[in-house]
Amino acid sequence: MLNWIAFEIAKEIIMAEIVTGCMIIIGNEILSGRTQDTNLAYLAKELNELGVRMVEARVIPDIEETIISTVNECRTRFDYVFTTGGIGPTHDDITTDCIARAFNTKVEMHPDVVDIIKRREAPPEVMASRLRMARIPVGASLIDNPAGGPPGFQLENVFVMAGVPMVMQAMVSTLGKDRIRGAAPVRSRTIGVNLGETQVAADLLEIQNDHPNVDLGSYPYFRKDAYGTNLVMRGTDEAELDVILARVRRMIIDQGAEPIEE
Amino acid sequence: MLNWIAFEIAKEIIMAEIVTGCMIIIGNEILSGRTQDTNLAYLAKELNELGVRMVEARVIPDIEETIISTVNECRTRFDYVFTTGGIGPTHDDITTDCIARAFNTKVEMHPDVVDIIKRREAPPEVMASRLRMARIPVGASLIDNPAGGPPGFQLENVFVMAGVPMVMQAMVSTLGKDRIRGAAPVRSRTIGVNLGETQVAADLLEIQNDHPNVDLGSYPYFRKDAYGTNLVMRGTDEAELDVILARVRRMIIDQGAEPIEE
Repeated sequence: MLNWIAFEIAKEIIMAEIVTGCMIIIGNEILSGRTQDTNLAYLAKELNELGVRMVEARVIPDIEETIISTVNECRTRFDYVFTTGGIGPTHDDITTDCIARAFNTKVEMHPDVVDIIKRREAPPEVMASRLRMARIPVGASLIDNPAGGPPGFQLENVFVMAGVPMVMQAMVSTLGKDRIRGAAPVRSRTIGVNLGETQVAADLLEIQNDHPNVDLGSYPYFRKDAYGTNLVMRGTDEAELDVILARVRRMIIDQGAEPIEE
Repeated sequence: MLNWIAFEIAKEIIMAEIVTGCMIIIGNEILSGRTQDTNLAYLAKELNELGVRMVEARVIPDIEETIISTVNECRTRFDYVFTTGGIGPTHDDITTDCIARAFNTKVEMHPDVVDIIKRREAPPEVMASRLRMARIPVGASLIDNPAGGPPGFQLENVFVMAGVPMVMQAMVSTLGKDRIRGAAPVRSRTIGVNLGETQVAADLLEIQNDHPNVDLGSYPYFRKDAYGTNLVMRGTDEAELDVILARVRRMIIDQGAEPIEE
């Protein structure tokens, strides 16, 4: 019995270690290069604070079958899925219907959203378009939109949000531990050095091998008059990160170079 | 016989209509939000000029099994696949080995790349790291790197390039019609209007229905003192795009608003 409890606790710890998130960016305008996505970087940082690690992102076009199959694949493979884009009022906003189809449910007018939309008056034709945004899949809960417009929604582990960064960020700000059960956030340490990657490669490999739980990355940079490498340590154990940081700093000094601290 | 030729020609036309591209962005630093990807938008535009339509992009971590399975899935589903990231000299640069494993081939020192790398002298340890970048999968052809460093490579329909934007862009600049067989590039027309999406939604739907070959998108924008919508028409037939542009312009004027031309 004690063994069984220990096993359950151990399992819980192991399972809690990494909670995975996947982002699905829906929109032809991102794939054509017309619009530069910035939502991925924003969401990745916010999710990390909630203890969810972004482990994959996909950018897909406004094509019904693609949206449905991508959502269905990702919602089984990852703990949480976050979509952006395609929930506006025009004919190319098809995300809501696709999510409903992916979950085998239907879309209905949500009375709370109808109320929000009707607060602002509009001519009948405009109101009809705006009311498209009150169409919410049956079974979904709403994601508030402090930016002022219609909300997003959550269906099981899938969070459906707007693509306009200002609105997406407003929606993300409402997501808390009541809806997302994360693990420990990833913390990082960064140190720069005006050496090429090749000059630090061997030392880095040694340090990485000594600390398998930490992700040690090196990122070359090229600026006008200088090149160098940023060394980034990422992990959940702050004490371990500080130990590695000290070791990397010493490695840099031993090479006769100067550590550039953030 | 004539029928058969007609069929072959028709097949050629149908098959040539859309040549698909998929981008695989490899790197923990993009998924953590530390680095903002800009390669997708750049590559999408360049590929379009070569007649390849970017229809999906994936951002994946530096994990061997994930890279291999993603490459293998995408290279069968899309006409061309382009990867960025993970071909540098450090321990976290594992893309080359993963590509080789995906294609069931091995990695060997490529004499041409060894020559390029040895042109610049370096201490033995540094040279050893740099020579990691001469490891190229057997059967691959090189992608020149006018930025000055080691090249990328192509294996069948998969193009493997650096993640640093300056280097990636240099590599892309060498890709031409000798290696990439595209179709007609997508052209676009954009017109802005200081109306909300809901005010144009019904008219847009009607125009879209009349022109199924053109992708008509509406993208709301919010600036300091103004909001509005950009209407974007995308398709391969420039004459048809101009017809639609004129119709959209008239629709805006009929609504008493002002068309904002780019």
